[in-house]
Amino acid sequence: MSEWRVYLSGEIHTDWREQIVSATEAAGLPVSFSAPVTNHEASDDCGAAILGSEDKKFWYDHKGAKVNAIRTRTLIEKADIVVVRFGDKYKQWNAAFDAGYASALGKSLIILHDPSLTHPLKEVDAAALAVAETPDQIVKILNYVINAEL
Amino acid sequence: MSEWRVYLSGEIHTDWREQIVSATEAAGLPVSFSAPVTNHEASDDCGAAILGSEDKKFWYDHKGAKVNAIRTRTLIEKADIVVVRFGDKYKQWNAAFDAGYASALGKSLIILHDPSLTHPLKEVDAAALAVAETPDQIVKILNYVINAEL
Amino acid sequence: MSEWRVYLSGEIHTDWREQIVSATEAAGLPVSFSAPVTNHEASDDCGAAILGSEDKKFWYDHKGAKVNAIRTRTLIEKADIVVVRFGDKYKQWNAAFDAGYASALGKSLIILHDPSLTHPLKEVDAAALAVAETPDQIVKILNYVINAEL
Amino acid sequence: MSEWRVYLSGEIHTDWREQIVSATEAAGLPVSFSAPVTNHEASDDCGAAILGSEDKKFWYDHKGAKVNAIRTRTLIEKADIVVVRFGDKYKQWNAAFDAGYASALGKSLIILHDPSLTHPLKEVDAAALAVAETPDQIVKILNYVINAEL
Amino acid sequence: MSEWRVYLSGEIHTDWREQIVSATEAAGLPVSFSAPVTNHEASDDCGAAILGSEDKKFWYDHKGAKVNAIRTRTLIEKADIVVVRFGDKYKQWNAAFDAGYASALGKSLIILHDPSLTHPLKEVDAAALAVAETPDQIVKILNYVINAEL
Amino acid sequence: MSEWRVYLSGEIHTDWREQIVSATEAAGLPVSFSAPVTNHEASDDCGAAILGSEDKKFWYDHKGAKVNAIRTRTLIEKADIVVVRFGDKYKQWNAAFDAGYASALGKSLIILHDPSLTHPLKEVDAAALAVAETPDQIVKILNYVINAEL
Amino acid sequence: MSEWRVYLSGEIHTDWREQIVSATEAAGLPVSFSAPVTNHEASDDCGAAILGSEDKKFWYDHKGAKVNAIRTRTLIEKADIVVVRFGDKYKQWNAAFDAGYASALGKSLIILHDPSLTHPLKEVDAAALAVAETPDQIVKILNYVINAEL
Amino acid sequence: MSEWRVYLSGEIHTDWREQIVSATEAAGLPVSFSAPVTNHEASDDCGAAILGSEDKKFWYDHKGAKVNAIRTRTLIEKADIVVVRFGDKYKQWNAAFDAGYASALGKSLIILHDPSLTHPLKEVDAAALAVAETPDQIVKILNYVINAEL
Repeated sequence: MSEWRVYLSGEIHTDWREQIVSATEAAGLPVSFSAPVTNHEASDDCGAAILGSEDKKFWYDHKGAKVNAIRTRTLIEKADIVVVRFGDKYKQWNAAFDAGYASALGKSLIILHDPSLTHPLKEVDAAALAVAETPDQIVKILNYVINAEL
Repeated sequence: MSEWRVYLSGEIHTDWREQIVSATEAAGLPVSFSAPVTNHEASDDCGAAILGSEDKKFWYDHKGAKVNAIRTRTLIEKADIVVVRFGDKYKQWNAAFDAGYASALGKSLIILHDPSLTHPLKEVDAAALAVAETPDQIVKILNYVINAEL
Repeated sequence: MSEWRVYLSGEIHTDWREQIVSATEAAGLPVSFSAPVTNHEASDDCGAAILGSEDKKFWYDHKGAKVNAIRTRTLIEKADIVVVRFGDKYKQWNAAFDAGYASALGKSLIILHDPSLTHPLKEVDAAALAVAETPDQIVKILNYVINAEL
Repeated sequence: MSEWRVYLSGEIHTDWREQIVSATEAAGLPVSFSAPVTNHEASDDCGAAILGSEDKKFWYDHKGAKVNAIRTRTLIEKADIVVVRFGDKYKQWNAAFDAGYASALGKSLIILHDPSLTHPLKEVDAAALAVAETPDQIVKILNYVINAEL
Repeated sequence: MSEWRVYLSGEIHTDWREQIVSATEAAGLPVSFSAPVTNHEASDDCGAAILGSEDKKFWYDHKGAKVNAIRTRTLIEKADIVVVRFGDKYKQWNAAFDAGYASALGKSLIILHDPSLTHPLKEVDAAALAVAETPDQIVKILNYVINAEL
Repeated sequence: MSEWRVYLSGEIHTDWREQIVSATEAAGLPVSFSAPVTNHEASDDCGAAILGSEDKKFWYDHKGAKVNAIRTRTLIEKADIVVVRFGDKYKQWNAAFDAGYASALGKSLIILHDPSLTHPLKEVDAAALAVAETPDQIVKILNYVINAEL
Repeated sequence: MSEWRVYLSGEIHTDWREQIVSATEAAGLPVSFSAPVTNHEASDDCGAAILGSEDKKFWYDHKGAKVNAIRTRTLIEKADIVVVRFGDKYKQWNAAFDAGYASALGKSLIILHDPSLTHPLKEVDAAALAVAETPDQIVKILNYVINAEL
Repeated sequence: MSEWRVYLSGEIHTDWREQIVSATEAAGLPVSFSAPVTNHEASDDCGAAILGSEDKKFWYDHKGAKVNAIRTRTLIEKADIVVVRFGDKYKQWNAAFDAGYASALGKSLIILHDPSLTHPLKEVDAAALAVAETPDQIVKILNYVINAEL
């Protein structure tokens, strides 16, 4: 396979994506990464900014969430592997939603989280082919899976 | 359609399911409800209790989550409508996972939550055909959808 | 097949559905009919009436259209045959949407309309297995298809 | 994703497609656009012109509509995003048919129309991830969805 | 499985269907049989008879073939097993079309024909799970497959 | 769900199926069990016995394996849960084939085997939602999954 | 779309494929053609020649038909458009099988045959988006569908 | 088709893959081969090595088998043809699992094994489009299927 497509879903407040991307590039792996919009403000405001504002918070959010879905669902559907990271802040229901969505599509799912989250994430982890704790482990999995060597 | 199959996913600490089921029955609607195992302890322990215990918490949880998945995935796949309720406690990532899973399968999705959760649930709500605040609204939707009258 | 499921989509201002249903029953055909909500007011107001009103017309309509979609998509997906009737009033884009939706799902599509509408309906008719002009022809098709005799 | 495939369905009497295409190219976005045959006469006559004329208008139209379907269905199935524009003239049932067809295939659907059409398009809009009023908004959505910035 | 659905496609000029049906009933097997319209005249004329005649033979045939397709495709899609019989007369392209259609849908395909037709049917036979020469063998297969004994 | 369909694949030389079926019936669980033909001789000879013998062992086996596939594939496709048991004798490649087949169809897979087979079955177990060692555990899983209590 | 994939199935005794390919190339259309093995002898003998001969004609043919299926099914599944030509000789059941197979996969189907074959091909024609009589018409359809002009 | 994707599953203790790959390259065939990780130790240890070791052999194996599944399932799903070789050692249930998995996905399946294994592999062979005995026969099939000549 000339290129593996990996979607990086979930937590957007630390640099885990950058760590994975730079280490993967350094290793010369043929991976094409994609991700949701990780600029929190843009992600919240995109619907209202482009299509017109809303007085009600529900519709303000709704318009934005749907515009973001154009990006996220398209990229998840194109992906071979979907990595979902859960952090220690916020409710992150969109991350769990993405994991369920990817699972039903039959994508290879990898979950990345601190061991302290094992219990509340047990149903999500149960759908995954790997549960990692560090970005470095994700890179090692990609290297192994693509290069066929440890 | 002789019977509508409705799966009630999510929060297990209040009696919202009972409210919906009893009002639906009182209204004589032809609905067959299903749900995950709502006994919290049984749900946590089922894997170890049936298949043997585990020293590591991860595998203890893992075995249970997978046994539960036999029930939840089968019932979600059979459902016509999937209702997912989010409460104000716990992380509830399994509920969001179910919503994503049901959405990718093309199920009619209804989300039930307090307006205070609108922002963190915006991506989940965006995938739904209805966002309700009370069990009574769910019953009214079922009545309308099935009986074709308000 | 013990029962054929036929969904009757489209125009809601004449009694074409009643004609088809009563003639089919009179003929003793094993058909289970379904249809969208044909009460125009209820169909327009259901979202706001159940889930709360909206100041903006767009969202008022949007909520209602989605609640109706719970019914229409479920029933179309269950149907063996989808009949879509176009009348001489209103824009009827929902009828054409249903025809496209049913076509992509591989349903047997029958279109019912006056010959005067042949040109603007040519793309819709092109996806159909039969194009009829009268409810009586629909009944004759059902009789032939089920009883295997003219 | 190296290239996003966007199908532009619907109204063929104004230059909305050209506006979107030229602004997208000016912005350097990696989008590959496709569309139905927008030459009204060619679109009407193609079946008879290539495969032989017909005395009956129905079959004349039918042959043409099917030849056009070879193009439209193939391109819609290849598309990541389907934009459907409704104008103020003609019945445009083919546009609504395309929207239903794309929706059932799970495509990201964007509807483009004047606010005056909100009510008759409510079922179509309900299936969309964005409802826009101007071609410029479509370009902004594409830019945001692809470049991940407002 | 409480009932096996078996579709009997192909040749309509001998009593092979009756032989299979009566022997299956005599054996008390829980099989629900279906078939295309086997009245040759009705099958040829149904389109014109119900929807109006046509001057051109092509459209006369076309209307009928599509009305028949409402029956045949629905029943093939519902079937667990599709039996296709080829006789020694006529071109029988519809039988081979049904075999290809059923094969692509993943149905269990059984072909029934005289050994003299082995060479021209080799591609069709290659897609089958059994190639039989007599109706009696079909009954024996159904008995074995359902009752699990020779 | 009024009835759960469980397919019992694999080893045919011990009474594990009978143990599961009788204990499930004793517990009053609404389960409909199915299985391959478990009469070893009939399973080997069915093709030749019904469709005519073959000199070459390869075709003798081939005809039988395909007739058996009519039963096994139909029943696996209808099943909600597929249990596959591996014993300590024979190569049992058909059991592993069934597991792979069921897995790709998204069935809930349960593998039943002695711990001594853990290593060679690791890829098969990795696709399962439960790995059991005794028929009694299978019954307990069915009871838990259906009755929602331990 | 940078390239349209067109599979040319059916009759192998005249030069209709060459006519279509050379005219398409002369017109500079971005079409990638594929076809079954058109060398009649190779097609008949491939199974026995590669995998070992067979005494029985049935298995000789069977092995060859299956090896050919590796090519034909792969290429049909990759195709956007499937053209099937019927000539005036031989039974050509493999051509009709291909048409049914392509139809069930949702491919755009074009049938090419002399008007004298209209009646026996009516069910096959009914599944097509165009019925042509000459290779030149196929080229014109491809030109129109790809270049969007007559 | 510019490139055929062939996955080589199964036995990893002889050089059959190298024989096929080198002969295919020598013949200049446009084939892109892929395979599981064929380093037995790496394949056994990958889960523990990357994600942390396990005391229990079951989980040690389980983690590894799932990491390997990221590679194998992705590559099988991308493949046009899946070749599965069975050798004379080990249980090779993963090979049979891959065959079942590929079969349910509709891949063209080729099985490669010594005639001595015909009986235990009969169900696997029954799902294949070719059963070969030597790597050279695989190369000849690829050559024939791609170049359309013996």
